Amino acid sequence: VFLSQMGWGDLGAFGEPSKETPNLDQMAAEGMLFLDFYTANPLCSPSRAALLTGRLPVRNGFYTTNGHARNAYTPQDIVGGIPDSELLLPELLKKAGYINKIIGKWHLGHRPQFHPLKHGFDEWFGSPNCHFGPYDNRERPNIPVYRDWEMIGRYYEDFKIDLKTGEANLTQLYLQEALDFISKQQASQQPFFLYWAIDATHAPVYASKEFLGTSQRGLYGDAVREIDDSIGKILSHLKQLGISENTFVFFTSDNGAALISAPKQGGSNGPFLCGKQTTFEGGMREPAIAWWPGHIPAGGVSHQLGSVMDLFSTSLSLAGLQPPSDRQIDGIDLLPVILQGKLIDRPIFYYRGNELMAVRAGLYKAHFWTWSNSWEEHSKGIDFCPGQSVSGVTTHSQEEHTYLPLLFHLGRDPGEKFPLSFASEEYQRAVERISALLQQHKATLVPGQPQLNVCDQAVMNWSPPGCEKLGKCLKAPESDPKKCPWPH
Amino acid sequence: VFLSQMGWGDLGAFGEPSKETPNLDQMAAEGMLFLDFYTANPLCSPSRAALLTGRLPVRNGFYTTNGHARNAYTPQDIVGGIPDSELLLPELLKKAGYINKIIGKWHLGHRPQFHPLKHGFDEWFGSPNCHFGPYDNRERPNIPVYRDWEMIGRYYEDFKIDLKTGEANLTQLYLQEALDFISKQQASQQPFFLYWAIDATHAPVYASKEFLGTSQRGLYGDAVREIDDSIGKILSHLKQLGISENTFVFFTSDNGAALISAPKQGGSNGPFLCGKQTTFEGGMREPAIAWWPGHIPAGGVSHQLGSVMDLFSTSLSLAGLQPPSDRQIDGIDLLPVILQGKLIDRPIFYYRGNELMAVRAGLYKAHFWTWSNSWEEHSKGIDFCPGQSVSGVTTHSQEEHTYLPLLFHLGRDPGEKFPLSFASEEYQRAVERISALLQQHKATLVPGQPQLNVCDQAVMNWSPPGCEKLGKCLKAPESDPKKCPWPH
Repeated sequence: VFLSQMGWGDLGAFGEPSKETPNLDQMAAEGMLFLDFYTANPLCSPSRAALLTGRLPVRNGFYTTNGHARNAYTPQDIVGGIPDSELLLPELLKKAGYINKIIGKWHLGHRPQFHPLKHGFDEWFGSPNCHFGPYDNRERPNIPVYRDWEMIGRYYEDFKIDLKTGEANLTQLYLQEALDFISKQQASQQPFFLYWAIDATHAPVYASKEFLGTSQRGLYGDAVREIDDSIGKILSHLKQLGISENTFVFFTSDNGAALISAPKQGGSNGPFLCGKQTTFEGGMREPAIAWWPGHIPAGGVSHQLGSVMDLFSTSLSLAGLQPPSDRQIDGIDLLPVILQGKLIDRPIFYYRGNELMAVRAGLYKAHFWTWSNSWEEHSKGIDFCPGQSVSGVTTHSQEEHTYLPLLFHLGRDPGEKFPLSFASEEYQRAVERISALLQQHKATLVPGQPQLNVCDQAVMNWSPPGCEKLGKCLKAPESDPKKCPWPH
Repeated sequence: VFLSQMGWGDLGAFGEPSKETPNLDQMAAEGMLFLDFYTANPLCSPSRAALLTGRLPVRNGFYTTNGHARNAYTPQDIVGGIPDSELLLPELLKKAGYINKIIGKWHLGHRPQFHPLKHGFDEWFGSPNCHFGPYDNRERPNIPVYRDWEMIGRYYEDFKIDLKTGEANLTQLYLQEALDFISKQQASQQPFFLYWAIDATHAPVYASKEFLGTSQRGLYGDAVREIDDSIGKILSHLKQLGISENTFVFFTSDNGAALISAPKQGGSNGPFLCGKQTTFEGGMREPAIAWWPGHIPAGGVSHQLGSVMDLFSTSLSLAGLQPPSDRQIDGIDLLPVILQGKLIDRPIFYYRGNELMAVRAGLYKAHFWTWSNSWEEHSKGIDFCPGQSVSGVTTHSQEEHTYLPLLFHLGRDPGEKFPLSFASEEYQRAVERISALLQQHKATLVPGQPQLNVCDQAVMNWSPPGCEKLGKCLKAPESDPKKCPWPH
């Protein structure tokens, strides 16, 4: 289960004050809560690419070099996508007989060569891009929804999202797809990998009629409640089919809550600093729960530094497979953590685009670069840290600290508000250790070809496969490739 | 159990990322978690007076009129204290045969007429003031520690607190006192009220040697861990004695985490704004747990707007007593909430000194005055909202909003960052309702005689009762009564 910009503080089990996620809280009570779990990037596409490849975006190509330390993703005019040279989790699982399905947002490129079924998935129900819109189909086409190889309609046309009321039944469609797929796999006794990548918590936030107005938290909370309810139903379904003890379920999110959209369309990062787009904890620390009845001791809590990339290695391990040995894999196998309560010493690297902004080792986090966004963007009202301002930390220009990193102790100061004194012995010791990790990382890093540099209006979803049957093909404009502008 | 400045976000059950409070989390799992529970004042003495009288500080005299909207407490040069005219919870419980003990910090006045044993308590182990110090016994005496009527020593002399290491065994002493008292009461089959008012989480923060260095959170976390461990031992003791089903236990705190002391000496208010001294949620929303096995359904969660003053009325109700009818009581009986899951419609009043700063009704909170602290204090580095700054909200001058209150929806925006638009219908409706509550409250309010206006060096703890036996009497200076300076 891979949520779209749900924040660390959005679940009752993580201290959300309305405590409206009984099913996820129950999942945590039956499984293991990860309190120090990270995404690989503070933005959606690179995080998703990292999860499916087990590799940092700077390796798998999901970054840009158009500007320094700029977040990039896959809008529908992006030319790039997941390179064929990358090995995706479903491609590998296939070798062990798994049937792989993606439900929801793909976000690794929408052009034909990037189609999920060309990268290891057997089935797909969902869309290649965010559910932004509605568009006029002239300047910009509406985003298609696919079933497997072909589109079956477009958002706002065939798959309604009411932007006024926030009503959309998409989560129910995604839920039904998941339940059906699980039933089918159980019946055919075939192992399966389900990547349930729903996006109701991504602006424009939506919920089904039944859930609208049910949350204390407004529309965003309604979306969370519907997701919580759906996950409860999926876990119940696994139990009812008698396969819960053979099914490993992991829940996490692709980046921190989008505070620019708060309060109506954005969630909460609890006590952490800033949100989506930043490499502060609020941008990259994620709620995470592992669930596997009969295997994971109930009520477990882990402080393992974990990453979405670990889900790649862990899933391979569960399937009895080895990660590919011909490339650098950043994920680690978490099974010893989950099953035996071990703690594995490993750092967390916080990238923004092509720059390594920060490194966490143990409880220490060193910032080598700080930036929230530019003054220019900020003056337009775009604020990644609303109500928060830490002098010299949430900076509005890109500040380099490579010679004297800003150091925080995340145990004493999870909110990154009190940098340690440069003169302290504690600072010296911690920075020495982290600098060594940084050196080692940089020395062996071979950046991939950046995929998120070029945008072209001609590559938008004008005529996706299947459009003819529906009479929904649109005429593409002339090709006009440009550097994509990445302001953040 | 009444903690000293533990914040809403300090418990695992409330989302503290280190999750180091297994006993309190277990207490919550066996009992009921209150997510919308408040203290009556963002400072210690007035909160404690409110808890024990069931009345707002502005009624029971625990406030000052030396300045507008100033927090005041009981340092050892305070002349005032709890008036004889106030009826305290233990005075009333006595009539129903209860034996009452206070362990820890009294803080309702240290002069002889304010002694807890003159106000209904039968036993006392602890001190009248905060454990500040050490003092030189010339300019200022060290704070005495009492056993019942007489002092038995002084902090830093007979009861050590090592400010360098943070080591002090006081929580262990308080724990042993509690266990012994409970055993004695169980043996004599007499009903009892134990007010366990420990203060290890109040700066200077301390922990026993056994707990020092055990927390990810530093010294503050060590103190929390020791308290957590102690509460676990108290609850176990009740179970072992077979009286847990006859003993109602409530856990909460006197004000929000003291962010001025963070990170080493201050806790966390989770997702809420600012801390101690302020009437933002971080200053007054408290962690709260009710525990009563066999009566309270395990794992309960309540959104009842609760107050420490309710513990007065609820305790009376448990003892089969009525609250006094000759005065206004602000607390309500929470038993219908706790035992039957009811929700009682009632507002929360946020006072700072003599001013009603804000009112909460349902999920709406209206600020009639905003103030964090003065620019002058702020420029000295005193920051009640470190890292937080909400324009027009966390103001450094006292801003009046009585004609156009600042309104927040605490469900959608628990962090008080996004005031509702004055022009919205939602604003109009909510403010109308809250204004009516305010009118009603103000119309019937009869402020008590302010007790916290006058300070005098002559009234300090120079020669508390019992000092002669110990050879610890000190010579008081000339009386020199002055208006106490209350900068915040």
